[in-house]
Amino acid sequence: MCGIVGIVGKRDVNVQLYDALTILQHRGQDAAGIVTCQDGRMAQQKANGLVQDVFRTRHMQRLVGNMGIGHVRYPTAGSSGPAMAQPFYVNSPYGIALAHNGNLTNTEKLSEDLFKTDLRHVNTDSDSEVLLNVFAHELQLQGKLKPTPDDIFAAVSGVHNRISGGYAVVTLIAGYGLIAFRDPNGIRPLVYGSREGEAGVEYMVASESVALDVLGFHLIDDVAPGEAIYITEDGQLHRRQCAKHSRLAPCIFEHVYFARPDSIMDGISVYKARLRQGEKLADKILRERPDHDIDVVIPIPDSSRVAGQALAQKLGVKFREGLVKNRYIGRTFIMPGQQQRKKSVRQKLNPIELEFKGKNVLLVDDSIVRGTTCQQIIQMARDAGARKVYFASAAPAVKYPNVYGIDMPTTSELIAHGRTDEEVCKEIGADWLIYQDLTDLIAASTEGNSKVTEFDCAVFTGEYIGGDVTQEYLDRVAAARNDSAKSNKKTGKPTDAPMGLHNGASMS
Amino acid sequence: MCGIVGIVGKRDVNVQLYDALTILQHRGQDAAGIVTCQDGRMAQQKANGLVQDVFRTRHMQRLVGNMGIGHVRYPTAGSSGPAMAQPFYVNSPYGIALAHNGNLTNTEKLSEDLFKTDLRHVNTDSDSEVLLNVFAHELQLQGKLKPTPDDIFAAVSGVHNRISGGYAVVTLIAGYGLIAFRDPNGIRPLVYGSREGEAGVEYMVASESVALDVLGFHLIDDVAPGEAIYITEDGQLHRRQCAKHSRLAPCIFEHVYFARPDSIMDGISVYKARLRQGEKLADKILRERPDHDIDVVIPIPDSSRVAGQALAQKLGVKFREGLVKNRYIGRTFIMPGQQQRKKSVRQKLNPIELEFKGKNVLLVDDSIVRGTTCQQIIQMARDAGARKVYFASAAPAVKYPNVYGIDMPTTSELIAHGRTDEEVCKEIGADWLIYQDLTDLIAASTEGNSKVTEFDCAVFTGEYIGGDVTQEYLDRVAAARNDSAKSNKKTGKPTDAPMGLHNGASMS
Amino acid sequence: MCGIVGIVGKRDVNVQLYDALTILQHRGQDAAGIVTCQDGRMAQQKANGLVQDVFRTRHMQRLVGNMGIGHVRYPTAGSSGPAMAQPFYVNSPYGIALAHNGNLTNTEKLSEDLFKTDLRHVNTDSDSEVLLNVFAHELQLQGKLKPTPDDIFAAVSGVHNRISGGYAVVTLIAGYGLIAFRDPNGIRPLVYGSREGEAGVEYMVASESVALDVLGFHLIDDVAPGEAIYITEDGQLHRRQCAKHSRLAPCIFEHVYFARPDSIMDGISVYKARLRQGEKLADKILRERPDHDIDVVIPIPDSSRVAGQALAQKLGVKFREGLVKNRYIGRTFIMPGQQQRKKSVRQKLNPIELEFKGKNVLLVDDSIVRGTTCQQIIQMARDAGARKVYFASAAPAVKYPNVYGIDMPTTSELIAHGRTDEEVCKEIGADWLIYQDLTDLIAASTEGNSKVTEFDCAVFTGEYIGGDVTQEYLDRVAAARNDSAKSNKKTGKPTDAPMGLHNGASMS
Amino acid sequence: MCGIVGIVGKRDVNVQLYDALTILQHRGQDAAGIVTCQDGRMAQQKANGLVQDVFRTRHMQRLVGNMGIGHVRYPTAGSSGPAMAQPFYVNSPYGIALAHNGNLTNTEKLSEDLFKTDLRHVNTDSDSEVLLNVFAHELQLQGKLKPTPDDIFAAVSGVHNRISGGYAVVTLIAGYGLIAFRDPNGIRPLVYGSREGEAGVEYMVASESVALDVLGFHLIDDVAPGEAIYITEDGQLHRRQCAKHSRLAPCIFEHVYFARPDSIMDGISVYKARLRQGEKLADKILRERPDHDIDVVIPIPDSSRVAGQALAQKLGVKFREGLVKNRYIGRTFIMPGQQQRKKSVRQKLNPIELEFKGKNVLLVDDSIVRGTTCQQIIQMARDAGARKVYFASAAPAVKYPNVYGIDMPTTSELIAHGRTDEEVCKEIGADWLIYQDLTDLIAASTEGNSKVTEFDCAVFTGEYIGGDVTQEYLDRVAAARNDSAKSNKKTGKPTDAPMGLHNGASMS
Repeated sequence: MCGIVGIVGKRDVNVQLYDALTILQHRGQDAAGIVTCQDGRMAQQKANGLVQDVFRTRHMQRLVGNMGIGHVRYPTAGSSGPAMAQPFYVNSPYGIALAHNGNLTNTEKLSEDLFKTDLRHVNTDSDSEVLLNVFAHELQLQGKLKPTPDDIFAAVSGVHNRISGGYAVVTLIAGYGLIAFRDPNGIRPLVYGSREGEAGVEYMVASESVALDVLGFHLIDDVAPGEAIYITEDGQLHRRQCAKHSRLAPCIFEHVYFARPDSIMDGISVYKARLRQGEKLADKILRERPDHDIDVVIPIPDSSRVAGQALAQKLGVKFREGLVKNRYIGRTFIMPGQQQRKKSVRQKLNPIELEFKGKNVLLVDDSIVRGTTCQQIIQMARDAGARKVYFASAAPAVKYPNVYGIDMPTTSELIAHGRTDEEVCKEIGADWLIYQDLTDLIAASTEGNSKVTEFDCAVFTGEYIGGDVTQEYLDRVAAARNDSAKSNKKTGKPTDAPMGLHNGASMS
Repeated sequence: MCGIVGIVGKRDVNVQLYDALTILQHRGQDAAGIVTCQDGRMAQQKANGLVQDVFRTRHMQRLVGNMGIGHVRYPTAGSSGPAMAQPFYVNSPYGIALAHNGNLTNTEKLSEDLFKTDLRHVNTDSDSEVLLNVFAHELQLQGKLKPTPDDIFAAVSGVHNRISGGYAVVTLIAGYGLIAFRDPNGIRPLVYGSREGEAGVEYMVASESVALDVLGFHLIDDVAPGEAIYITEDGQLHRRQCAKHSRLAPCIFEHVYFARPDSIMDGISVYKARLRQGEKLADKILRERPDHDIDVVIPIPDSSRVAGQALAQKLGVKFREGLVKNRYIGRTFIMPGQQQRKKSVRQKLNPIELEFKGKNVLLVDDSIVRGTTCQQIIQMARDAGARKVYFASAAPAVKYPNVYGIDMPTTSELIAHGRTDEEVCKEIGADWLIYQDLTDLIAASTEGNSKVTEFDCAVFTGEYIGGDVTQEYLDRVAAARNDSAKSNKKTGKPTDAPMGLHNGASMS
Repeated sequence: MCGIVGIVGKRDVNVQLYDALTILQHRGQDAAGIVTCQDGRMAQQKANGLVQDVFRTRHMQRLVGNMGIGHVRYPTAGSSGPAMAQPFYVNSPYGIALAHNGNLTNTEKLSEDLFKTDLRHVNTDSDSEVLLNVFAHELQLQGKLKPTPDDIFAAVSGVHNRISGGYAVVTLIAGYGLIAFRDPNGIRPLVYGSREGEAGVEYMVASESVALDVLGFHLIDDVAPGEAIYITEDGQLHRRQCAKHSRLAPCIFEHVYFARPDSIMDGISVYKARLRQGEKLADKILRERPDHDIDVVIPIPDSSRVAGQALAQKLGVKFREGLVKNRYIGRTFIMPGQQQRKKSVRQKLNPIELEFKGKNVLLVDDSIVRGTTCQQIIQMARDAGARKVYFASAAPAVKYPNVYGIDMPTTSELIAHGRTDEEVCKEIGADWLIYQDLTDLIAASTEGNSKVTEFDCAVFTGEYIGGDVTQEYLDRVAAARNDSAKSNKKTGKPTDAPMGLHNGASMS
Repeated sequence: MCGIVGIVGKRDVNVQLYDALTILQHRGQDAAGIVTCQDGRMAQQKANGLVQDVFRTRHMQRLVGNMGIGHVRYPTAGSSGPAMAQPFYVNSPYGIALAHNGNLTNTEKLSEDLFKTDLRHVNTDSDSEVLLNVFAHELQLQGKLKPTPDDIFAAVSGVHNRISGGYAVVTLIAGYGLIAFRDPNGIRPLVYGSREGEAGVEYMVASESVALDVLGFHLIDDVAPGEAIYITEDGQLHRRQCAKHSRLAPCIFEHVYFARPDSIMDGISVYKARLRQGEKLADKILRERPDHDIDVVIPIPDSSRVAGQALAQKLGVKFREGLVKNRYIGRTFIMPGQQQRKKSVRQKLNPIELEFKGKNVLLVDDSIVRGTTCQQIIQMARDAGARKVYFASAAPAVKYPNVYGIDMPTTSELIAHGRTDEEVCKEIGADWLIYQDLTDLIAASTEGNSKVTEFDCAVFTGEYIGGDVTQEYLDRVAAARNDSAKSNKKTGKPTDAPMGLHNGASMS
């Protein structure tokens, strides 16, 4: 998953982009980047690391200009090789920088077309570089010295025609403005808002509304599926539907796990959706085990706390912080003559014995993916003296990989793939396992906005909303993941990224 | 506040010291350091920053040896100047490294004595360097080529005779072993435990028992007030009471705020103490306002969550995560031509409007110190639509500075100093403010272990347990803090630390 | 001035490019860069600093591929802003990287054309980025999926048609090969050679033949003025004259000062040319002062040593190393409360008193530009007890700026501009000043290769060989230099370079 | 070899120490360090690297105080392990920092005594740390709160009594002043001088007089063998002979190779000594081959240039810069799949063919140690077409290791050890080899100051001036060198230094 932001302001926007990226940091902690533009010149800083480590004062001093875009990165499922820091840049036409959240499912074909037809060289495995070049080519086809809003929207239409997948995009054209658009299924989130400043109206686009809130912008709307908005450098807002066919089918995993609870997505409060997830799960528990013997509900911090509170309240059972999260995680050093020790779950989560000893405990998590952590926590609960350990998942069983921008293991690594609920229960060592029903999960979200009627739920059902995902594609992605994992194992470090290509003196 | 750890193992202890420091990181995030010892040679790495940033593989490779000590640092109230990374080192006698948690209240006199009588040069303002030199001098007085346990305990007795304040200490003598001791009032915490390994028994000393738990050591006991334990390099444990007079009066603020909830201190579970704090506070609310109109209890994350849950449960009121904490905090850049913007509380805490709108909200925090954050959160709650905003503090009103190792503002900055509770309530803008009673706070802790009968509660009462704190001392500390604050304001960065003095090639 | 190199080999060329850049380091110490290409992907590392500081093992490991180019940079006279590290890169068409030595005199117009006609965005002030985009555009005009040698030479012809100035260029087309070309007047040097390896013939292009020598390549020829050579990735060499009109008029300053003495340029041994400069200067001295009283000839190290030896020998006067050069130069720190002290010439050159005391000394330098160092050395000679101090310059009086790639002060800063030789002599404080005659200087070079009949001698005559330099252009360059100098003075550091724009993760 | 400096001034001396270290950088390029003292507090910066890389503005800002010492390091022959950056520091008594040039020959015994008798812990293999602790202990024995000059000189006497070897030392006592002393044989050089400033007289001590010259200090005298000078913090100069027996027998290798030519050592101009070395060598050539057929004399740059000029002049033969030195040396990268290539001599020295082709060439070097470079240069001369290649060494055959501070290979690696001159000639491939006679070498120096009558010439004779060097000691040093070399080969990098032990926050 990734987070994106774009601002067209009335003075330097570097610090605001920076602040927005810290707010969106939960969407990606691997790399961060900002590009700003002033007087037709672009400035860029991007690197691996947290936002607070990537940007230094010397970088901020050069990131001048009243418009810019930013990105925080998380490696995505569809990218076989090492993922790259964004934004990316091309100098022809105009000078364009682009960052996106999501994943394209036809990258391979696009790369070939770019090379053969468009004579464009793509130097990395990043689908973002591909997306940028497709956009650049479509814009070049308009052939204008000064692109009008019509030209720009035509280019976005061209992009929608050529690419498949889920994507939310911010892109900057040197000397012109900021464009933001979202795929025709609206899989990945994108909102925009405005702020009345002394020097006029300022606009901001972001993956989540919480970034707008914190920076004092007021949410105007979600960018609609297939829609593009274009904010000129001097602050004129244009918006247009650029896809032939569009429908709203956002990724439900944002509501389960990914988004911050204080965000509003497609009109739905993520916090409320999670409360309802907890309530519906309580209903199911009461249905299935009306005479349950649960003594205490304990959330696995931090993401399941909201659903857990609602669940506990509805059950009428005590809700306790029985697992303490260590917020400071260290590295794993490989010392000569010492065995490589895996960091135990214990270093991340430590149980309060009191809350487990002699009790029937219901542990709540947002979802179960690989199941390994889950298994260790259950064992830890038993070691702490729990009589019975029950496990509740706020989402249904995850059985298929995500291809629209969430990093997830391959099918074979998913504990629920090819296993019944009972088998999963046994595997993780719980005394009872309860999954949310998919209809309940969907209802927990749609009750927040009746206009949203469908979601991409492919990780639960295997039905990909884009209709563009073949078994062959999934196999290729899985193979690439495995290759990458293997080569990592060999070298003991992440696959080396292809080296950056840049113009201008290096700054670091 | 600081965290300390020491291990005498059967093979290299570097990685375990590292892991222990990440577990203790909540006690200090400013600096970290480790010293290990092998074949009579010491190796050291220390620097400003988080544990995960201070230690690289190249450092770990040199931190060889089966015994070592580690430290995480937080600037302490009594140190006028900038605090220093620990451990500190002297080469005479024997080669000694030392780290401590706490604060000495007679540093000035000690420095003078060291200089005049002992001809020892103290190059920094750190009371740790002073403590180390006092210990070194006392040990030198024994005049032995090979110090026996008696010599070492005699030296610790000498230290107790000369120094005043609160301190928990780990120190390493090259070629001999690890010594740990605690001040005669037991103000700062210190525990030790053992682990049966393949090659024999290994020992660990740490500020908090949670570090032992996570590394698989079993808690043996707290180090008693005035007691010292000496573990020889080959694993023999010696222990002795080294103070003439001792009593147990630990710092109650550990139970309020500082310690991890999953720690056991002086036989008291911190988690349970906090649960009781919440319950007693609920009792007081019910006493004072039996017909209260509280709709929801919202904790200020993360430290008040445990007390908050107990409080809400006892009140029979909904407990909700109404404030979302942003875990990724960025820097504050000072850009030319832009106003210096203070990071708003909003960037750290964002309200879920739903939980505030139209409701009577009870916010719970562990304590109120300066009151400024408190004030901003209350305003934020009102902006989010709260009808009434009540505020509960799990600790009584903080009216006096701490001089035993907790960094706290000077008296004049404490909002409760010289103000009645009503005045504080008005100042922070709450509709109602309720403080825990001191007797309740103490009871919440003593109920966990009846053998502990008194605590250092000076921040509430002004009565310092050591009996060694004069108004003149407090004035001097306050003046030093102000000077330091002023000079920081001028330069825009922390007062420059005196430069490190080190032997051997620099490694960074 | 800058140095460039390109290699098409049979295995990885990174280490050889690195070694070649260290050999060419005297041509530029400000920045260095390498781009290599493998399987159609480019890898790049460039940064400010010496070659030995810019490239680390981790960079070399990524600089894979059997073809690549490299660059060392010196800020050039014609670039108003801060100069940039090279090579530069564009991704359309094909992916092209380029580095050059020289300076374009119509950058401004080119930038405008690129923007208006070619829709190409130039993000820096670097004329290299402009040159690259002109070449890319000309190549794109050919419109081929796979460019043939004809297409490539046609693009070079297009470049010659559009740009003015002096330039020697190496450029890499991803998946195709290496192109090298030289401006139609052959102002800047460029040679190429080959080496028979186990796997076939390998080619190398470089600014100076010494780079070929040291790496074991045999000099084939100079690249002719206006000519281009194209070496395909698999080692086929193509060469063609691409300029309509060309003549050979190389920069004579290479022979005076810039080139390494062990280089052969356009068939002339630089070493021999300098010997002849010394001899001809001796002849002039004997002509003008047949009864001179010179006791000793002392060179100003290192560049005038060769001419000085020949001069002394012809005069029959002792030649002595009377000035000792300190090879380790430190920074100039600005300490608070201390005056900013200029590094004195004394820290770079120290006189051996013995060689000055009571003697008539002839100091020899390659040329006199600003005259300030000269003045200080003469004073130093007097302080050391010299009876008379004579000064000989192996080049004529420098009166005009260089616009073809040598960094030189503006006209007004040149001590000889608007001054007679006598006035210069008085200004520098010499007892006698003797300049080489221009005809002698030219003869010293042409005697090495009778086919070379003319040189760019504009710094002495003001007649620019390209015929393209107007007073207005010179004024603009001078103004830009002054602006840059002023802004440097204000901030106390070099004008900030526009930030790099790069794709792929940052490596540093 | 190392370089040392100390200054007691009237204001901050940091920048002057820095400048002095750049002047002394030729004496050691491995590491550099400075300690200054203000108000009894010391500040330190030291690290591996050149002076210009070790000190940044942030370091200089903390290096406050009107007195300080500095050091540049070269690994010395007697230190088996990795050498350490200096100055070293101990805090008892008083706080003392020390740096030295030279080597102790009884380090092992001293370390043991320090540990057993003085209870002092020495944490590294550095003889400097040992020397510092011996001095500290001797000073502590005086037992004074405020040490008088008598106490300090008594401590130096104590040091002379206990240690053997060659040493020139600067040491700083916090709050008191600067002490400088030289071993009783005066093996290593040390001079001092003064400067009349606005605020009074300032003093400087340095390894070479050139550092005084460049900083504007006037040479007062050499520190005499066994003598100590003590300059108090407020500028009072005391001097005293502290050795029972002393004689002047300086290291002749300073005159051959090590010192800068513009230095005066023990009253002898190094430059003049080298001129005389050249003349005497010419005499020997004329004696041995009155009808020699030498066409040209070519120095191997840079150290043999002075002797070469005198030699050529006396022979009446042309002197030419036939070998061009590349001043920019790169690293040797080990690339996977590529052979480890040794940097050839060719990358450091390139011949001017013209000066070799068809000629009888006399190459001149200051000395021949291993002979490997020598051999390669002779081959290079032949490849460049020389008819005959003669080789002259300004020093006699080097047959024994140096133990007084010059880094030299072990006996078995010295080409002249166990070989006659003819055998060496054959080994290096010369047509004729001529060594300076030892009596001539000594005369070349003593003619500069008749008061100096003897030198340490042990590398030629095997007779160590200290009378303290046994075969067993030489064997131990050789073994240590070999071990170190082997372990380097294995790891591909220098033996890891024991980690630094330092107090105060790390600054890098």
